[in-house]
Amino acid sequence: MSSQPAHPTVLIPGPIEFDDEVLKAMSAPSESHVGMPFVNVFGDTLTLLRDLFITSDPNSQPIVLSGSGTLGWDIVAANIVEPGDEVLVLHTGYFGDSFADCLSTYGAKPTQLKAAIGSRPSAEEVEAALKGKKYKAVTVTHTDTSTGVLSDPKEIAEVVKKVSPETLVVVDGVCSVGCEEIRFDEWGLDVVLTASQKAIGAPAGLSIMMLSKRAVDSFKARTVPPGSYFASLKNWLPIMQNYEAKKPSYFATPSPQLVRALNTSLKQILSRPLSERFEQHRAASLKIKDAAEKLGLKQLAADPTHQANGMTALWLPEGLTPADILPHTGKQDVVFAGGLHKEIASRYIRIGSMGVSVTKPELGHIDKAINALESGLLAAGYQVPS
Amino acid sequence: MSSQPAHPTVLIPGPIEFDDEVLKAMSAPSESHVGMPFVNVFGDTLTLLRDLFITSDPNSQPIVLSGSGTLGWDIVAANIVEPGDEVLVLHTGYFGDSFADCLSTYGAKPTQLKAAIGSRPSAEEVEAALKGKKYKAVTVTHTDTSTGVLSDPKEIAEVVKKVSPETLVVVDGVCSVGCEEIRFDEWGLDVVLTASQKAIGAPAGLSIMMLSKRAVDSFKARTVPPGSYFASLKNWLPIMQNYEAKKPSYFATPSPQLVRALNTSLKQILSRPLSERFEQHRAASLKIKDAAEKLGLKQLAADPTHQANGMTALWLPEGLTPADILPHTGKQDVVFAGGLHKEIASRYIRIGSMGVSVTKPELGHIDKAINALESGLLAAGYQVPS
Repeated sequence: MSSQPAHPTVLIPGPIEFDDEVLKAMSAPSESHVGMPFVNVFGDTLTLLRDLFITSDPNSQPIVLSGSGTLGWDIVAANIVEPGDEVLVLHTGYFGDSFADCLSTYGAKPTQLKAAIGSRPSAEEVEAALKGKKYKAVTVTHTDTSTGVLSDPKEIAEVVKKVSPETLVVVDGVCSVGCEEIRFDEWGLDVVLTASQKAIGAPAGLSIMMLSKRAVDSFKARTVPPGSYFASLKNWLPIMQNYEAKKPSYFATPSPQLVRALNTSLKQILSRPLSERFEQHRAASLKIKDAAEKLGLKQLAADPTHQANGMTALWLPEGLTPADILPHTGKQDVVFAGGLHKEIASRYIRIGSMGVSVTKPELGHIDKAINALESGLLAAGYQVPS
Repeated sequence: MSSQPAHPTVLIPGPIEFDDEVLKAMSAPSESHVGMPFVNVFGDTLTLLRDLFITSDPNSQPIVLSGSGTLGWDIVAANIVEPGDEVLVLHTGYFGDSFADCLSTYGAKPTQLKAAIGSRPSAEEVEAALKGKKYKAVTVTHTDTSTGVLSDPKEIAEVVKKVSPETLVVVDGVCSVGCEEIRFDEWGLDVVLTASQKAIGAPAGLSIMMLSKRAVDSFKARTVPPGSYFASLKNWLPIMQNYEAKKPSYFATPSPQLVRALNTSLKQILSRPLSERFEQHRAASLKIKDAAEKLGLKQLAADPTHQANGMTALWLPEGLTPADILPHTGKQDVVFAGGLHKEIASRYIRIGSMGVSVTKPELGHIDKAINALESGLLAAGYQVPS
């Protein structure tokens, strides 16, 4: 069924399992990064991202750099906001703290609006915060990979438009782009940043971003130069625009293999309606969540409308830690992830359900995950409540 | 002879042609970035870099991040030097200007010591500059990819030790690590930064660096926090140390596929004496340089001791541009590079000779390059002087 060597099924919140063709693209022979074969592929890849983010505004700007999802924070913090700018960071876990750290590094002033673990700031709280101070930008982690909490960027953007329309809406979509609905133009988003290795289904190594005209204009109106060199839009905007126009251009050497893998994955994703893809992720995730509930496990995100569709974070039964469970699920040839949120890392596990593991049910990954979860719990001495 | 699909032979100053096994490692199935199989490979890779850079000091610190060679400049500029620090930048082409730009971005004060195109600052000039001002660091581009000029980091380090021993010696080894002799400990270097896609022979996408104890101490003695988040040693040092100690650790997701390719390439490189590898590169490069001379072409680097061994930059005959030659060499199934140095880009071409194209003479790449160069010139109407 797969041309890949036998290996444990990776069901963590990224990296995820790869489609065979995506992985084959990774072993494309060497080529020049400024030769037309690669320039055409890179240019097409940038254009395909417009469809993935659902933006038809020609002034939207796709960006793909070698790096990880984290690099996207630097791009925002060093280019879109300026030193001294106030930024409202909606906090739903580890990644809010980290984004705030990154903003501070470049001199912006983040204010975190925190929710209890497993929850998210309400629209009312966001509205009140926006009324209390003038923010250059608000950041929202669409899916916080540390808690499995899903935010609602559409609702946040609506609140912003109503209360503080000049504020830029920045979405950390690292664990959501490709599995959660995102309508860039329609919702009025300004930045959506992500990485290659989650629901987009390519190997790790690329930072991926879409900027609105407002975000680009904000960058162009800066009074001080960008705070980063490698992550500088001054250096990269002309390069991205040239690649998309199929013109060779150089600032730093991109990775032809990773870009070809991304190109292959995007073509696969976009060969079907995105709405179908989102529904598939919702259904697969629900199957895992329902099975976990039957086993007596609760999610960190208690409210069903706050639960991510690309991953599930589950409280472990009292007295059990990831170290008690994961070796057993590993024996079932399934890789789950331990906790990431520092305060509670030893008390929960995370299960990813993205990409081919969802869109190719014939692979049997979701059932495998559910079986492994149950047998892992039993092997750890857990008794399923009757 | 190769398991790779037919493709033009890439003989530019990076990316270079890949060994089959290296390319196969790129299509390794998905795995967790914090699972022991990958942690072991990443840890071993960091340790192998110690051998590549020839350092046995346990306090030397290898670093591998997703990014490009350029990211290495950010790591230096945002961590090793502080805002206000004076840095002497030895300029041998495009990459000196760019490194200086990067240093300025983070508040350091670069002073460029420039040489005429094709030349390099002399030891006497460097000594005089170091006597004239106190510099926190001196940077030297080992091989400037824009000109093919080779610098002498050993000699520079000696001058520094004599005149200004506290000054850190920073080597941009993007086009030299893996093909030019570098003895990290013996020469007393403090930073050598490089990328995956040149003489190391892995695909593009990784920023690679070795830091001395002095460089790490300089970072630790900073009075202000690092100027970058993604390139922050505060974030990455513990991660690199944990990986090398084979302990799972997370700051941002590394690329398992690229790291496995790097691991494969490093093992191949280190399976033979490095001295043999450097001599192979010298001989292959000389073969190209001699053939070019017979064709009446001059190198940008006139002095034989200033000529890189991993690439050759050749002035084109009067009246010819890269656009006249490269389409013809392309028809010979060979990819050369045009000029990169802005002032003279239309007047020269660049030929890479690194990695398997050098160490596997049975591939016939060097002869192919020479034949393509000659036939390309003839097809463009050039008459070889008799």
